[in-house]
Amino acid sequence: MLERIPGDLIIDEVVVGPVGPRDVLVRTAAAGLCHSDLHFMEGKYPHPVPTVLGHESAGIVEEVGSQVSYVQPGDHVISCVSGFCGGCRQCLSGHPNLCDNAGFGVDTAGPPRLRRGDQPVFQFAGLSSFAEQLLVHENYLVKIRPDMPLDKAALIGCGVTTGVGAVLNTAKVRAGDVIAVIGCGGIGLNAIQGADIAGAGRIIAIDRIASKLDLALTFGATDVVDASAGDPVGAVLELTGGGVDHAFEAIGLAATAQQAFNMLGKGGTATVIGMIPLGERVEIDGFQLLMEKRLQGSNMGSNRFRIDMPQYIEWYLAGKLKLDELVSAVMPLEEINDGFAALKGGEVARQLVTFD
Amino acid sequence: MLERIPGDLIIDEVVVGPVGPRDVLVRTAAAGLCHSDLHFMEGKYPHPVPTVLGHESAGIVEEVGSQVSYVQPGDHVISCVSGFCGGCRQCLSGHPNLCDNAGFGVDTAGPPRLRRGDQPVFQFAGLSSFAEQLLVHENYLVKIRPDMPLDKAALIGCGVTTGVGAVLNTAKVRAGDVIAVIGCGGIGLNAIQGADIAGAGRIIAIDRIASKLDLALTFGATDVVDASAGDPVGAVLELTGGGVDHAFEAIGLAATAQQAFNMLGKGGTATVIGMIPLGERVEIDGFQLLMEKRLQGSNMGSNRFRIDMPQYIEWYLAGKLKLDELVSAVMPLEEINDGFAALKGGEVARQLVTFD
Repeated sequence: MLERIPGDLIIDEVVVGPVGPRDVLVRTAAAGLCHSDLHFMEGKYPHPVPTVLGHESAGIVEEVGSQVSYVQPGDHVISCVSGFCGGCRQCLSGHPNLCDNAGFGVDTAGPPRLRRGDQPVFQFAGLSSFAEQLLVHENYLVKIRPDMPLDKAALIGCGVTTGVGAVLNTAKVRAGDVIAVIGCGGIGLNAIQGADIAGAGRIIAIDRIASKLDLALTFGATDVVDASAGDPVGAVLELTGGGVDHAFEAIGLAATAQQAFNMLGKGGTATVIGMIPLGERVEIDGFQLLMEKRLQGSNMGSNRFRIDMPQYIEWYLAGKLKLDELVSAVMPLEEINDGFAALKGGEVARQLVTFD
Repeated sequence: MLERIPGDLIIDEVVVGPVGPRDVLVRTAAAGLCHSDLHFMEGKYPHPVPTVLGHESAGIVEEVGSQVSYVQPGDHVISCVSGFCGGCRQCLSGHPNLCDNAGFGVDTAGPPRLRRGDQPVFQFAGLSSFAEQLLVHENYLVKIRPDMPLDKAALIGCGVTTGVGAVLNTAKVRAGDVIAVIGCGGIGLNAIQGADIAGAGRIIAIDRIASKLDLALTFGATDVVDASAGDPVGAVLELTGGGVDHAFEAIGLAATAQQAFNMLGKGGTATVIGMIPLGERVEIDGFQLLMEKRLQGSNMGSNRFRIDMPQYIEWYLAGKLKLDELVSAVMPLEEINDGFAALKGGEVARQLVTFD
């Protein structure tokens, strides 16, 4: 639980329930540690407290509300922050991740889903996954194959979908395209393997940490640029003889978003996957627009998660999508603050908390 | 002719020729006055002098080089700055306007195409249309129907193609989309009629001059916003209940490019059509990228001009594309500086110089 901002997490007892008509109670199997959780712990984005963080998880349905038909007890599910109403303009035009009914399924008219004693606990992103149970609206869940390992499935709930989806859904990378990825953490590695699945002709991985560049090569990168040696833009322009078709920013900083734009060739597209801190502005040289360059954002990989995630699982089971290799560490809930400290240090790809 | 920068144009005798193997000599019928010419006269973009400006023209072929098979004497043609090599990656992937061989057909190995006495005169954009004759590479020309009036055809050579093409080719506006156009000069009016042709659901025209907003309504705008009353972003957000699908910047300023981005709804695209002066930077709020907003540039309407321009002519002859209404004034070459003064004042849509 997060009690004050900025602050570490504390372990406490939270009461979950009651189960509303469209709610689903899920026994959490595993939950991933994500940079976005860290942003909220550090206060880069605001959130009311107390709250239970965590939003990348998988588990098994325990109980369903009276109106729920999508899942039943025993079903395996992945949770996703991209809860959708299913009836608005965005949902109906292929963009449920941008659902017009923001907060749909989060702020119900009923009693709070989470409480500590008499005090309501604010649910995070409609999920709050760093807990043994999740109580969520059914439209925050996708049902998955029961033979898919739940710890690996959890990773798909955010990081994999964000990275792979940015490449396949937002940028729509085509076979033969030349791409660059700035930042080879959990998101960047998934952008790299997304580009590999799409048949990219050349994949340039950029990071300041040598071990991450090595890992990037195993995820499909064809070239690496060490950004600790200086601004990587010049190196990429030289490697490609004029710039890339697609650049992906997978850190969440204005400075690296600008680098992504500046390493584009004519007609190229820079896609910002990372969450840029509130208030930061991205500056581009207006003249470059004449070369039909493009800067765009990706929200959670432009996911239609009930469509995308089952596909990602098929690719994993067929050996086309790496998940095992993404996991740097597995820990019990009690060690979660150590995990976030390691994440802050930048040395890890993805860490999981598991519950047994 | 432009002799010094910044400066007005002067009238002088220029010798044209010889006709190279792939060159075409064209008798100019009409040439449009464009803001881009003005940018070069004012020094906002550099160009060597002396030069003959002008790049939006139509005429009749007088003579062709030994290797030219595309046209023959007597053919009617429109000139376009988007000369293409036809063999590079951009040309072969549907983007001849971004041809990798920049300057193709401009800097020939042979003698200069234009001379004053013994002095070479620098050709502007491979064309130099403010003259009774043009000598150009054949890949700067499109052959057109002989029954198309050449004065109206000239307008298609730049302004129409830039505005209509930005909507149809660059942004690919779909029927039902909600769009806004900032700036209702020659380019903006064409963006508006392009959106009308594409079946846009709502077209919001934005300008500071009331007469231009009136004209915009006759070109298909459904709503107008007077920007002289203050920043138009708030008005557009209110009119649309949250922003537009597509915003077009048709002036060429960083400030209005930012307005275009800021008036987008979720998943919206801002397309910058205008040439932003060298050195100006466009700043956007990084957080907005999370809503999958997009900022892109359009180069001459992403034209494939030999494909697009004959289509525009068909639409004009069928009454679907307005050209007559674009013409604010027609003048002889001797009055061209008066025309540019009027253009600078911002009161006119498009002016033509005609040669008889």
